[in-house]
Amino acid sequence: MRILGIDPGLRRTGFGVIDVLGSRLQYVTSGTIIVPADQPLAQRLKVILDNIREVVQSTEPTVSALEKVFVNTNPASTLLLGQARGAAMCALADSDLDVYEYTALQVKKSVVGNGHAAKEQVQKMVQHLLALSGLPAADSADALACAICHAHFIPLTQRLKDTGQLKSSHSSRVRGGRLVG
Amino acid sequence: MRILGIDPGLRRTGFGVIDVLGSRLQYVTSGTIIVPADQPLAQRLKVILDNIREVVQSTEPTVSALEKVFVNTNPASTLLLGQARGAAMCALADSDLDVYEYTALQVKKSVVGNGHAAKEQVQKMVQHLLALSGLPAADSADALACAICHAHFIPLTQRLKDTGQLKSSHSSRVRGGRLVG
Repeated sequence: MRILGIDPGLRRTGFGVIDVLGSRLQYVTSGTIIVPADQPLAQRLKVILDNIREVVQSTEPTVSALEKVFVNTNPASTLLLGQARGAAMCALADSDLDVYEYTALQVKKSVVGNGHAAKEQVQKMVQHLLALSGLPAADSADALACAICHAHFIPLTQRLKDTGQLKSSHSSRVRGGRLVG
Repeated sequence: MRILGIDPGLRRTGFGVIDVLGSRLQYVTSGTIIVPADQPLAQRLKVILDNIREVVQSTEPTVSALEKVFVNTNPASTLLLGQARGAAMCALADSDLDVYEYTALQVKKSVVGNGHAAKEQVQKMVQHLLALSGLPAADSADALACAICHAHFIPLTQRLKDTGQLKSSHSSRVRGGRLVG
């Protein structure tokens, strides 16, 4: 199973792709889509749409995960974020990917173990869990954290079956089974 | 010039297409995309994306117009509307259509002559301006009103030139020139 995590935003949209290999998580790629600020709204949304589509085409994920956004106190910002989020979800749904949503609390709890962890803690734990050589940038880290969160919500038995590590649902032969996180 | 007007919403998205023939406006088609409420958000956005794309493919507009939304007092509704709007704009931008935005005040002023006109007045004026046999439904009327508003913002000289009614920018021969609205 390959998971694409997205952290949508109208200025910067982060993406991160990981593989779930039984009980192990493996980093595939991540990055940030920088959306030009000087273009009309529709063109900015198209930049998000096109770039996520490109990530999907080049990495071929089997599923995708997004953070459920907390609603901003500024209604204009909420509307802008909603539009960016709509563009991101369109790119995913248009590629026939199922889209799972997790709250920030679920993501942080899943990655750091604390639903109220600071941004830096999320970055550090993402680096640790995916054995990255350097600290990932904030947008990439949030997107990868979302993907990791989704991986943690897949039952271990399912993950082991997917990789052939678990032979059947009635078998108790689990080789190398370890619950991550 | 053929204008596609869109009135985006997560439950119902209205669309309306008109032709600008010199000084005359001609109704082409209109309708409402009913978005199933029981599906996951990404699927609902895809319904908007796919249906608007279909309208674009079948009617081949040259430009599109949307109402700039007033921000709802309920932040959750604002986020949902933003996402629906994002999906609509993606469909338009993805079809290489320029997207123009007008405030509700501009649309009402342009169609009814009064920026604070009631919904019913907009419906009646849309019916009148496009010589429709019946009153258009609210969603269609809003989308058509947006398209009419855009038509009114195109300089008359441009509209006459497009249809060959005005021979050159230096010519004063205007045949059948009448400013609509």
